[in-house]
Amino acid sequence: MGDDGGMTAPLRTAFTTALGIEHPIALAPMGNCAGGALAAAVSDGGGLGLIGGARGDWDWLARELDIVTGRTTRPWGVGFLAWSADPAIVRRTLEYRPHAVMLSFGNPAALAGPVTDAGVPLIVQVTDLDEARQALDAGADVLVAQGSEAGGHGGARSTLPFVPAVADLAGPVPVLAAGGIADGRGLAAALALGAAGALIGTRFQATQESLAAPDMVKALLDGTGEDTERGRAIDIARGAPWPPRYPGRALRNDFTRRWAGREDELAADEAAQAEFREAFARGDLRYAPVWAGEGTDLITDVPSAADLTGRLAADARAALVRAAGG
Amino acid sequence: MGDDGGMTAPLRTAFTTALGIEHPIALAPMGNCAGGALAAAVSDGGGLGLIGGARGDWDWLARELDIVTGRTTRPWGVGFLAWSADPAIVRRTLEYRPHAVMLSFGNPAALAGPVTDAGVPLIVQVTDLDEARQALDAGADVLVAQGSEAGGHGGARSTLPFVPAVADLAGPVPVLAAGGIADGRGLAAALALGAAGALIGTRFQATQESLAAPDMVKALLDGTGEDTERGRAIDIARGAPWPPRYPGRALRNDFTRRWAGREDELAADEAAQAEFREAFARGDLRYAPVWAGEGTDLITDVPSAADLTGRLAADARAALVRAAGG
Repeated sequence: MGDDGGMTAPLRTAFTTALGIEHPIALAPMGNCAGGALAAAVSDGGGLGLIGGARGDWDWLARELDIVTGRTTRPWGVGFLAWSADPAIVRRTLEYRPHAVMLSFGNPAALAGPVTDAGVPLIVQVTDLDEARQALDAGADVLVAQGSEAGGHGGARSTLPFVPAVADLAGPVPVLAAGGIADGRGLAAALALGAAGALIGTRFQATQESLAAPDMVKALLDGTGEDTERGRAIDIARGAPWPPRYPGRALRNDFTRRWAGREDELAADEAAQAEFREAFARGDLRYAPVWAGEGTDLITDVPSAADLTGRLAADARAALVRAAGG
Repeated sequence: MGDDGGMTAPLRTAFTTALGIEHPIALAPMGNCAGGALAAAVSDGGGLGLIGGARGDWDWLARELDIVTGRTTRPWGVGFLAWSADPAIVRRTLEYRPHAVMLSFGNPAALAGPVTDAGVPLIVQVTDLDEARQALDAGADVLVAQGSEAGGHGGARSTLPFVPAVADLAGPVPVLAAGGIADGRGLAAALALGAAGALIGTRFQATQESLAAPDMVKALLDGTGEDTERGRAIDIARGAPWPPRYPGRALRNDFTRRWAGREDELAADEAAQAEFREAFARGDLRYAPVWAGEGTDLITDVPSAADLTGRLAADARAALVRAAGG
């Protein structure tokens, strides 16, 4: 690689500079999966680990915050759901001195204040151009442009055409690409599109430090993007009041097959909901979701998250060199 | 650009080598829009122009074949719909000595024989991994992995995660990326994903040589990806028996808004269909579709297609240099 025109240098971007990290990679703050151990491992690997603070269950979050602060001295952060997180929980989290707070799904205005007042970099995930404008108005330091191929919840745009449109709108504010990125080629594509890095979720579920159950990890190794499907049945059955505009993408299972296209009927069927919740509590994957993005095809092993972070960056660099014919 | 490590060299790939062209860009063979003039202009610009042969209307196609052969001495080709084109029309087309024939949407086996027997490179567009296997079995020389963000008809996968999965499957067979690619950044991303180039449709509708009506071109300049929507209402109303697995993406209009989610009802409503066909014949864009991909945000001018082809390649090269930090 000595003849590649200097491209073995790190992939420095406005995001790596702003956060003081080595690789342009952030861990998606996946609820129940991205705990303190996974966030610390991504940070130790040179990326930005983000704990999945979700709606703000403080007992869970306090434990994971203790883990991340005990395990890494590198930058890390926490993500919350903008439509439901409690501002008080965000404030308690800021006492742990995260290096970034991320808000996703919904208007970030109500939660942004405490973050920016504390001088903590604010990352806001957006799923359309109106949300991107709203995020810039709220003072976001970094935008995440998320495509509908992402695992878990999301909007209606696709990553490849959406990222450059958001980058054009954001001007100097760095944009991360999210949705469908699961290997170095995807990270390289994100950078080529004008993003300053990638936010990666599903791929990090299949790591040593993920909190995902072993049968979930196996399902990700076996599944392809075509085994994933978006819908609202799972949220309806578990009583999670997600805004309808954000359906969730998961591996198809018996439950999603049964209720696809019949979500109104499910909402009125209390017995079916109770059956779901009982099976969900048991972790029965015929019912419980394995949230998974379309990049699932590309997941073939279960490395440590730190090693994976370095590998993604090295593979992205190699992909860019190859693409440029260098 | 003298200090970029040699990256001002052309973006040579297995596709440019196989077709003997300069830039890794193919024109999507859009029916009623990609005629002989547009195909010749893309070819003269260094890409591969493909006439939209669609289902094989010979009167239209013979005229456009005369135009393309009269205007360019560079490689060009024709695309057909695999689910409906007449093998006799494909054979008549081969008499014009195209440099490639492309088959899209459906099993290519029945039409592939005449093409490969004539020694003409066969390009097959695929929308999932099963179709990719089928295309390789049919002897495809080039695959096109098309994502659902494409304008017009398509399958269910998204471009960014789908392309590397198809590239892994295809091995040495070159893969083009399609869907949502409308500027140099998108082409650069395609190459970073492991594609040997990009097949570009919507962007080429807004060129001097496109057969798209001026009000359609204006709608593309004004529209964003969020103004597009996929559905089957247009095909149902015009009596086009497209396989239901391939809905079409177009700019939302009065007609698509009225019938979204009510396609079965439309199929039974002959008066509504007649109303559509009458307005369609007049070119009334409150009814008639402006097929448009999600990359529509990125279309801001109406250049000549030859200039655009060169600009896409130059911008892609620059995007790769920037992404690699060069």
